[in-house]
Amino acid sequence: MFSVYDWLELTSLGELVFVGLGLDNEEGISLHGLDEAKTADKIFVELYTSIMPSLSLDRLEKLCGRNLILLQRKDVEELNGKALFDTAQNGKVVLLVPGDPLVATTHNILRTEAAKRDIATRVVHGASAISAIVGLSGLHCYKFGKIVTIPFPTETSAETPYRVIAENKKLGAHTLCLLDIEVESKRYLSVAEGLQALLDIEQKRRRKVVDLDSLAVVVARAGSNDAFIKADFVRDLFRVDFGKPPFSILFPNRLHFTEAEALIVLASAPQQIRSLIE
Amino acid sequence: MFSVYDWLELTSLGELVFVGLGLDNEEGISLHGLDEAKTADKIFVELYTSIMPSLSLDRLEKLCGRNLILLQRKDVEELNGKALFDTAQNGKVVLLVPGDPLVATTHNILRTEAAKRDIATRVVHGASAISAIVGLSGLHCYKFGKIVTIPFPTETSAETPYRVIAENKKLGAHTLCLLDIEVESKRYLSVAEGLQALLDIEQKRRRKVVDLDSLAVVVARAGSNDAFIKADFVRDLFRVDFGKPPFSILFPNRLHFTEAEALIVLASAPQQIRSLIE
Repeated sequence: MFSVYDWLELTSLGELVFVGLGLDNEEGISLHGLDEAKTADKIFVELYTSIMPSLSLDRLEKLCGRNLILLQRKDVEELNGKALFDTAQNGKVVLLVPGDPLVATTHNILRTEAAKRDIATRVVHGASAISAIVGLSGLHCYKFGKIVTIPFPTETSAETPYRVIAENKKLGAHTLCLLDIEVESKRYLSVAEGLQALLDIEQKRRRKVVDLDSLAVVVARAGSNDAFIKADFVRDLFRVDFGKPPFSILFPNRLHFTEAEALIVLASAPQQIRSLIE
Repeated sequence: MFSVYDWLELTSLGELVFVGLGLDNEEGISLHGLDEAKTADKIFVELYTSIMPSLSLDRLEKLCGRNLILLQRKDVEELNGKALFDTAQNGKVVLLVPGDPLVATTHNILRTEAAKRDIATRVVHGASAISAIVGLSGLHCYKFGKIVTIPFPTETSAETPYRVIAENKKLGAHTLCLLDIEVESKRYLSVAEGLQALLDIEQKRRRKVVDLDSLAVVVARAGSNDAFIKADFVRDLFRVDFGKPPFSILFPNRLHFTEAEALIVLASAPQQIRSLIE
């Protein structure tokens, strides 16, 4: 059976354009992205997949020259993106997303759903926190294994990040651990909590994956003008004040000499880390 | 001995700001990045670490409102960044870099050298091809292991990418293979050449890492408005015309059902890939 609804879908002239907001504040958007927003019939913005600490919705609206519709998680996850798709059937919808839009799995699901409705989709990429953190750390991006998040201890244990670090270590790869964020309540896992969660598992497993003598690099506020990078042994990182979130912790494996040099000069790592040069 | 030169260095008021150009063309730069460029004493641009297919230096100069100085690889690798540092001792230098600036190892070396000269550095991030490719593929970014480049067959063999895919596979991780580019001559490895290089090693090793029945995803021109994504078994990818470069090939491992769905709907993968759902 071929319904009017099918016909409407097949002849959709609309499109849904995902535009990355990049990092930190409204000025992280690209010229291309802003241009897409300015020519949209409706602009939605979501701020539930990630936090942009210095973003002002007012300033973003001024840049775009029109009202922004704030999308809630339930609009996508419960109402299946209806608000977006209703307009995108016949018009141009821009969805503004923190960072690089498709890093959040949920937006690839939305992209799939749009395509099923015969709505064209395009993506204007933005700077991603993951790429920024890896770059700022001074470590080589080709040497990273799987990325992992250290969750709040109340929710699940740190068994998964511990296992991922162990697996990467076996392959000689570095690990990037993102620290969990509860976007709605702006609750963050601290660096000390993240480290302690891993040490607690080490205590049980004793596999020498992360201990007090492990080298780690903390990157705070990647993408902002006061990004902070500090490399040190775990025991000494407990004493550092990293300022405001968001935070990430990187566990390097054997180092290239330019990585060791970068950690010493840019992240004030102790000279002893030279012993980790491969 | 404390020379006048040391004193000049220690009291440097200058700074070197790395600004990412993002992807595809001059409109990939962020508002923040463009603002940094407009307030610089000198703007350098390098186009030797990556290719931006549609970039026009003329249009980029017009956006920045002043002349750009094109930096050559030898300026950094042989002359040790002298041109940059001479101005950055006392003024503000912006270096425009394709993609996200610190993904290229060479720029972290430059950042380290600047810090040694007491020149402050900052980074304004841009969209990175790696993040764009992973997102466009529809695969989950947390499931990727190490990234690797498939080199030109004349230079080195594909033993390294073959080994990386094998290691990632053992951990249940996806692999992103970038295809080699010779930026100066604009020479690119084709998808067929990349696949064949891996099949040649499979022929010798017989470890069932990549064969004609393996699922692969090709992402062409990530970041441009005509990005193209196609998922299929290796034997069938040889027959596809992917258009213009740059290209990348992703080898997925076991799939989440939303990944399978995305590959089928967005990358016209055959329905059989559902058998790979974990």
